[in-house]
Amino acid sequence: MTWNPRNVVLAGYGGTARFQQNGTLKFIPYHQLFKRITHVEVENYGGFDGYANRDSLKYKSIYGLENIPTLYRGTLRRAGFCKAWDALVQLGLTDDSFQIENPQKQTWRSLTASFLEVNNNETIEQALVRYLSLDEEVMSKLNWLGIFEEDSIGITEGTPAVALQKLIEKKWKLDEGDKDMIVMWHRFYYTQNNQRFQLQSSLITIGDDPVYTAMSKTVGLPMAIAAKMILSGKMNLTGVHLPVIPEIYEPILNELEELDIRFVEKTEAINH
Amino acid sequence: MTWNPRNVVLAGYGGTARFQQNGTLKFIPYHQLFKRITHVEVENYGGFDGYANRDSLKYKSIYGLENIPTLYRGTLRRAGFCKAWDALVQLGLTDDSFQIENPQKQTWRSLTASFLEVNNNETIEQALVRYLSLDEEVMSKLNWLGIFEEDSIGITEGTPAVALQKLIEKKWKLDEGDKDMIVMWHRFYYTQNNQRFQLQSSLITIGDDPVYTAMSKTVGLPMAIAAKMILSGKMNLTGVHLPVIPEIYEPILNELEELDIRFVEKTEAINH
Repeated sequence: MTWNPRNVVLAGYGGTARFQQNGTLKFIPYHQLFKRITHVEVENYGGFDGYANRDSLKYKSIYGLENIPTLYRGTLRRAGFCKAWDALVQLGLTDDSFQIENPQKQTWRSLTASFLEVNNNETIEQALVRYLSLDEEVMSKLNWLGIFEEDSIGITEGTPAVALQKLIEKKWKLDEGDKDMIVMWHRFYYTQNNQRFQLQSSLITIGDDPVYTAMSKTVGLPMAIAAKMILSGKMNLTGVHLPVIPEIYEPILNELEELDIRFVEKTEAINH
Repeated sequence: MTWNPRNVVLAGYGGTARFQQNGTLKFIPYHQLFKRITHVEVENYGGFDGYANRDSLKYKSIYGLENIPTLYRGTLRRAGFCKAWDALVQLGLTDDSFQIENPQKQTWRSLTASFLEVNNNETIEQALVRYLSLDEEVMSKLNWLGIFEEDSIGITEGTPAVALQKLIEKKWKLDEGDKDMIVMWHRFYYTQNNQRFQLQSSLITIGDDPVYTAMSKTVGLPMAIAAKMILSGKMNLTGVHLPVIPEIYEPILNELEELDIRFVEKTEAINH
């Protein structure tokens, strides 16, 4: 499993995301989070949806960006993900505030129906399409996920979010031959000698297989390199540090490049 | 003030409403609450919007309705209220989860803008209409409320919900000549000798003026009558009781009728 499933299900839940734009704070309530997305094109890797993280300003002072006017941190998903996930949010299946009654007796179909007003002349699927104005693309994703199935939700206690987590752990599992992909993408706007520039920096890593995932490589290798540096006496820092010190990140980023984990940068002058 | 302003602002906030329909539990998340409304026509008094209370099943056993298949409790507002209130909910102005930064420097216009993505070529009003697809009727209500004004939000600390409460306390105040209105409306469906019936029972009370409000009358008079009954020895119950005992409610309802506070009932046979 290359991700933390509970974090995926509860992304943004119960809170309000904040970021900064032209010097003022901006807020996005949870129920708008997956609607207010930013489309990102990553060269050679296609389109992604970006949604805002809970607190874009968390690293502002750590990165020394106290005076920056605009700062936004987000999470990227494959294009189309956010629209389908928003259907689960709007319906209520990411709700973590109440316990499902008699979960042993609930099927995915009955749980889904409990969030719907179903008219006499329609199916649960039709009621959902009408209620949230869903398109075929979203409905095919929800069908694939299994929220209309007559299968048991498979938990003995828990909230709708807990049931949904159980479902995606099963459906989103990497099968043999599946590979995961990590995409990090940064965009900086800056002005130098009265010329405005855009710098894009991106890192794309693809896993080898369901064990040597991109997630395990990008998390584990920097740790391993740091450990090696300490053991071989190449890093002399003591105590606990965030990796924002050049003495830590420069040798690690250099060695990661040899392992094919690298940032690609592109700078363009812009005239608008 | 005929209502509790904090309860109005936070109605349904942070929770999921539940009710029962044809024997199964149904849920409505907060962000859908003011969309999933029931239109109610009260004879001689026009149309109302009903939205679900947090827990429709709270009084189920108290009222002896354990085996009832459908049970829904809601709150009535004048028709059109819920659509406009939903705009405040969707925007985020009912949010009670974070403190406004520098509230002394915030105007209603800047607070509203902080929930919006405003394009270069549009006003805040236009951005809101575009974002939430609002119609003129809703926009005229929001304009009247004052969320686009350059006035200070007038609080030194608090959440958006606290600021909104302050605003409606000012704008919704009863002026001289204003009267409040209480509407209670019940609908029961039942079957008797194989015939299906609908019974509607409604109570409408209009205040005399901004002091002798309908709210103060409907809350205060039953208490006063009960106190009189105890003092004059007409009620001999001791201890604390809910008013679901005929010995309490029958004489009180009778005396309330003399004070022009009464339920009007209407029963119709239905054939569908």
